[in-house]
Amino acid sequence: MIILSTVREIKQYIKDVKRQGKTIGFVPTMGFLHEGHLSLVKQSVEQCDVTVMSIFVNPLQFGPGEDFDRYPRDMKRDILLAEKSGVNILFNPDVKELYPSDPSVTVKAVERTDVLCGASRPGHFDGVVTVLSILFNLIDPDKSFFGQKDAQQVAVVEGLAGSLHFPTEIISVKTIREDDGLAKSSRNVYLSKDERHEAPVIYQALQKGAAVYLEKGRVAAIEHVKDELSAVSGEIDYIEILTYPELKVPSESDTRLILAAAVRFERARLIDNIIFTTEEESVCTEQ
Amino acid sequence: MIILSTVREIKQYIKDVKRQGKTIGFVPTMGFLHEGHLSLVKQSVEQCDVTVMSIFVNPLQFGPGEDFDRYPRDMKRDILLAEKSGVNILFNPDVKELYPSDPSVTVKAVERTDVLCGASRPGHFDGVVTVLSILFNLIDPDKSFFGQKDAQQVAVVEGLAGSLHFPTEIISVKTIREDDGLAKSSRNVYLSKDERHEAPVIYQALQKGAAVYLEKGRVAAIEHVKDELSAVSGEIDYIEILTYPELKVPSESDTRLILAAAVRFERARLIDNIIFTTEEESVCTEQ
Repeated sequence: MIILSTVREIKQYIKDVKRQGKTIGFVPTMGFLHEGHLSLVKQSVEQCDVTVMSIFVNPLQFGPGEDFDRYPRDMKRDILLAEKSGVNILFNPDVKELYPSDPSVTVKAVERTDVLCGASRPGHFDGVVTVLSILFNLIDPDKSFFGQKDAQQVAVVEGLAGSLHFPTEIISVKTIREDDGLAKSSRNVYLSKDERHEAPVIYQALQKGAAVYLEKGRVAAIEHVKDELSAVSGEIDYIEILTYPELKVPSESDTRLILAAAVRFERARLIDNIIFTTEEESVCTEQ
Repeated sequence: MIILSTVREIKQYIKDVKRQGKTIGFVPTMGFLHEGHLSLVKQSVEQCDVTVMSIFVNPLQFGPGEDFDRYPRDMKRDILLAEKSGVNILFNPDVKELYPSDPSVTVKAVERTDVLCGASRPGHFDGVVTVLSILFNLIDPDKSFFGQKDAQQVAVVEGLAGSLHFPTEIISVKTIREDDGLAKSSRNVYLSKDERHEAPVIYQALQKGAAVYLEKGRVAAIEHVKDELSAVSGEIDYIEILTYPELKVPSESDTRLILAAAVRFERARLIDNIIFTTEEESVCTEQ
């Protein structure tokens, strides 16, 4: 595995890979890798000749008062995990490499952002699509891999690639979970022992909520999830059922939906979701 | 010359050109070609293996009440001129090809836009950088050619390529003028006979203004241009001296400056500029 940290180096390396006619798979991360990230690498290794992983904690996607400074970092461990999982190029730039000065042009997500996580994190997805535009331009990937756990991010990134015609295919990979169902997340390390014990309730509540949806509709399903989540000490940030990937309030004819929730614990805000289709009078979850 | 109008076709064609290891020069236009555009093609043909010209009147960069509908179009003539000047691929997409639906992600020029033309055309440069991001993604040019007549556009586009790390070199080409000094522009056809007779005063005033700058400073220079322009029937939109390409009010240590003016005639708003350096106690215009 080659570790690169400058724009000059990554551009040269990508040029060489392209010249050899090889396909590039790209796994963008903020590091502190877990099995979720490694499942993205696995998909990339299976589908592409060369896998590039970026590790970059992007200041642009953290709001004031958010956890940029204390976002968990462990580069030594990340390097071992990335290499072991089959990453060929690890791109780990300084902030000054990607943003040598304040950007005079930025990218703005104008849809799919005023609901779910976007509602309480104004500007967050603008930061995401700006850094991804830069990384797409530097790495020129044939395919880019994202975790379905961050379902709104996937929806916004599909919008980015579609609207601006970035020549990369966006691949969504199903959420990797702990044995008890908790979605893997870098932020799980900030849960107290008690919170960690409660946290699997989130996914259980979503599963039950999706079943309630078909029988009793949207309001009852959201209410059901709310009741289930009353068992945890964390504060509910949102529970929502929307069309996917458009993230609009569904009408009866909409069949592909997301049921998503966010819960704010003492030191970590956790999110999870289920994407399901309501065709043929049954609920089929995609993950 | 090959004429392509779909995203699918241009992507395939560019892929083939890249596979042959050829370099691509890109000349983005809104059509109604004149010698200014053809001078960009000339540079591209000299510097690159394959020259792609786009003709696309971009609705996103016209504000409400601006001249999108009556922007001059003459595709037959454009095709003849493009072919004759050495264009290899003419890309002429419908609006629906580049924007199949309202973009859910757009690009925003956050600096260099609140002065000169940007001050009276809010959102204009956002439309410019959005369509150029799309075209850069589709055409993947090694070099992209822009006319220095639209100096603010060049400054913003340099910001776009720099901030988002688009892998294309931005080449600025000097303004082509009529024999009497009037900068070539697609909008010149909307001048009345009297207005066309007056219009060369704009460039003359800018030349004199740059000379006045060194002797008497910024305020006197702007005042001088204003006096000169009082001879034309059009209304002055702005006269400004700024640093280039940052477009900030200059301090004494700034040596690379732009003197720019816009004049609103009955049916056409004309712009022109001089970029000059003040080193060694003399004014050297770059065009």
